Amino acid sequence: MTMERRGRRAPPSQKPLAQLPFQQPRLTLEPSRILSDDQIETIHRQSLRVLQEIGMDVLYPEAREILARAGARVDGERVRIGVEIVEQALVTAPSEFTFHARNPAHHLRIGGNWITFAPVGGPPNCSDLDRGRRPGTLEDNGNFVKLCQVFNCIHTAGGGSVDALDVHASIRHLHITRNKVVFSDKVPFVVSTGRARLFDSLEIVRMARGISWERMKAEPSAYTVINTNSPFKLDGPMALGIIEMARLNQICVVTPFTLAGAMAPVTLAGALVEQNAEALAGLALSQLSQPGAPFVYGGFTSNVDMKSGAPAFGTPEYMKACIIGGQLARRYKLPYRTSSTNAANSVDAQAAYETVFSLWGAIMGGGNMIQHAAGWMEGGLVASYEKFALDADLLQMLEEFLRPLIVDDDTMAMDAMLEVGPGGHFFGAQHTLQRYATAFYQPLISDWRNFQAWQAAGSPQAQHKANAIWKQALAEHTNPPLDPEILAEIDAFIVKRTAEGGEPTDF
Amino acid sequence: MTMERRGRRAPPSQKPLAQLPFQQPRLTLEPSRILSDDQIETIHRQSLRVLQEIGMDVLYPEAREILARAGARVDGERVRIGVEIVEQALVTAPSEFTFHARNPAHHLRIGGNWITFAPVGGPPNCSDLDRGRRPGTLEDNGNFVKLCQVFNCIHTAGGGSVDALDVHASIRHLHITRNKVVFSDKVPFVVSTGRARLFDSLEIVRMARGISWERMKAEPSAYTVINTNSPFKLDGPMALGIIEMARLNQICVVTPFTLAGAMAPVTLAGALVEQNAEALAGLALSQLSQPGAPFVYGGFTSNVDMKSGAPAFGTPEYMKACIIGGQLARRYKLPYRTSSTNAANSVDAQAAYETVFSLWGAIMGGGNMIQHAAGWMEGGLVASYEKFALDADLLQMLEEFLRPLIVDDDTMAMDAMLEVGPGGHFFGAQHTLQRYATAFYQPLISDWRNFQAWQAAGSPQAQHKANAIWKQALAEHTNPPLDPEILAEIDAFIVKRTAEGGEPTDF
Repeated sequence: MTMERRGRRAPPSQKPLAQLPFQQPRLTLEPSRILSDDQIETIHRQSLRVLQEIGMDVLYPEAREILARAGARVDGERVRIGVEIVEQALVTAPSEFTFHARNPAHHLRIGGNWITFAPVGGPPNCSDLDRGRRPGTLEDNGNFVKLCQVFNCIHTAGGGSVDALDVHASIRHLHITRNKVVFSDKVPFVVSTGRARLFDSLEIVRMARGISWERMKAEPSAYTVINTNSPFKLDGPMALGIIEMARLNQICVVTPFTLAGAMAPVTLAGALVEQNAEALAGLALSQLSQPGAPFVYGGFTSNVDMKSGAPAFGTPEYMKACIIGGQLARRYKLPYRTSSTNAANSVDAQAAYETVFSLWGAIMGGGNMIQHAAGWMEGGLVASYEKFALDADLLQMLEEFLRPLIVDDDTMAMDAMLEVGPGGHFFGAQHTLQRYATAFYQPLISDWRNFQAWQAAGSPQAQHKANAIWKQALAEHTNPPLDPEILAEIDAFIVKRTAEGGEPTDF
Repeated sequence: MTMERRGRRAPPSQKPLAQLPFQQPRLTLEPSRILSDDQIETIHRQSLRVLQEIGMDVLYPEAREILARAGARVDGERVRIGVEIVEQALVTAPSEFTFHARNPAHHLRIGGNWITFAPVGGPPNCSDLDRGRRPGTLEDNGNFVKLCQVFNCIHTAGGGSVDALDVHASIRHLHITRNKVVFSDKVPFVVSTGRARLFDSLEIVRMARGISWERMKAEPSAYTVINTNSPFKLDGPMALGIIEMARLNQICVVTPFTLAGAMAPVTLAGALVEQNAEALAGLALSQLSQPGAPFVYGGFTSNVDMKSGAPAFGTPEYMKACIIGGQLARRYKLPYRTSSTNAANSVDAQAAYETVFSLWGAIMGGGNMIQHAAGWMEGGLVASYEKFALDADLLQMLEEFLRPLIVDDDTMAMDAMLEVGPGGHFFGAQHTLQRYATAFYQPLISDWRNFQAWQAAGSPQAQHKANAIWKQALAEHTNPPLDPEILAEIDAFIVKRTAEGGEPTDF
């Protein structure tokens, strides 16, 4: 339990990473619209019809009871949800709220035109150029949390990061949550796949913040993601997660994983109807459990490769789904979660173009929480160290892209133009000399040397630069301040819960 | 002169490239706005002030005379252009027109929400993975024209393609124009750096179309690009190009190359004022030479790396400039030219992310002519065969992204959802089986195999796949039909012009 003291420091000779400050970008442009308002209403009405006529299989008795009490028609596990339940949920769900970090400088606004970049969550594997592709460990999990803490453009202490397969599943949540709160003071993700996992994780988050449960309930301080079992199924842990997160006023992101052609219709309109119906079902359960609980509308509609059944990401269909998902979320005045994705096997051109196409859809779609925004590879099977560093650069570029442009006499530079005149150059102009050091975004990865210099340096590819960057970032990590008494309290809790067995498992 | 008969055919065993049909995409989304209308007016007014107070050095006497006759104040080579000249030019310039190809199926609309993808133009070097980076030859030049012809998503027979450095500069234009009209029946670019080059090239284009000069003047059939000598300078060949293209009713794209910090102020607002002033000066000269001549507003504002002075592309600054350039062009109701760019030295992640960021700016900025959209590398120093193939895939993805989505009972797939029900899957649904073959975009490059299969195949990177794709595309090329008498006429013209010395040069 002394892992947090091992933080390596950058050698004094090395300049620290040139980063932008921690900031939450806002979508300063109008979000894009692919469908007309009428078409959005058509998707909306069809989703309501689906909830009424097909409904959802809900495998958790308490969830069925909650929905039945509100007037839903329950038939075995099948629950058919009426229009009025959805409409009432839309009244109570907040459109914007504050997400509280243990360091107030890292509080986030969720909703409106605020953007949050959350990193990779969930892969069982990790990879880097030195050690290759391998199952994730607790050390890797912690490393990704450290990268989240070091990179200012990452706003959370991690999605799930890479899984820690070297720790037994019954107590893994204790250690990965500890990683989050010890290595980072940004807002944490918590796993919700089981009652013990959920409550244990939240308890560690609460302890780390050093607050009471009463205050925790007043201040959303953790989030989880529920991926419905598409089509139209909500299993026990999922339903429990929605209900209990709502009751504790913590943030629940319900994201149907609707791959067109597999778990959803092969047509994008159909897949979006399904996504929307399932997200609205999650919303209903959330708001019936606790009216006003913070809820995020999640979209994750993409397509499969119909030749192989493999999921595809960063495709034109994905971009469209991102943007239409945003239109639906805005129709409901709900914060919108989307993702930065790719299906590449290495950090090559494909990884980059699928990622930027995804980001195009996510940003122009008005995404508020952009998940998997750093390090996600292979359609979610791998957390890549190099991809994390590369993505950090892309996210910083987006922050800079979204920074409003100042147009005034000073920036329009009439004096400089008069000084330089036709045929001159601005390198030596007073106006340039005063501003050149901070005028433009300085990339972490991009190599702008000329070909000869680049070749002389060994013709490095972007992934090689990224390899050096993540190592430097890890070396720069130090644990944010945490009261030793709190740390002792957390560790005692982990010992106790480990002794109690943690989350019951089959093995 | 029998190069056109060497077209290799794909071996019969190989399936032809799975492409989308030739189509001109339209921006079906609202173009993005970074500046308010007031801010656009501020940039506009400041540009007019620059044209009046600083003006342009115009090195071509006839251009000065034309501008003077319209009321511009001429002082030596300096020409100061008044508001009323610009305003009159804005009245006569068309906002949309047809660009005539020798194959009418390849006619283009320029302006409105129509998009044209034009490939790489101008690099002295080319490269591919087999032969490395090297000076371009006439054969390479022809190969790039062939790629333009084969890939349906490329709408022109080339920008300048790669230069043919193995042909003397005095007659090079004859051969590269011949390449364009023999290997392709799409609309051609013509060089305008000299009177003989311009008129010879246009003559070959006219012959290839088999039309009279009278009809040529009624039907814009060629385009050129004039990059002003920023800041504020228009040299002899540039001014001649603008004047003569206008008189012949051919398409002139005036694109100031305003790198912030070098040829333009270090602030983006200043660089855009300069871009706008220079583009408006070009517009004025064009419309004074021939009111109503087809003119395209070009934007190419990016930044330099202030550490090295190297030009940077695909940066946040570049994206902003693309979008604001589009706002200015729409303010003037002029077609808008922008570019897909990158400064990478190899077809790696950097090449891809800079390219897609550029395309994001170009497309969301409302670009009508997107230059360098395939094959451009190293900030314009290299035409890359692999990048060309990779870009073709990206452009097809954009065509698919921009294709309007159909929302109706059929695509919303209620019957399929009822058939599948909760917990099922759609792979075998009737709705899926009827549509799966054409439901989604099939990429040329992206490798969606799982990691193990990909590794077993040798862990290919995207550039290796691209290498195979351009070879297949070249193998699929055949010359489009051209009347043998016309070809003989073109070749006789080339012999004659070669004997006459072509364009005068210093060597």
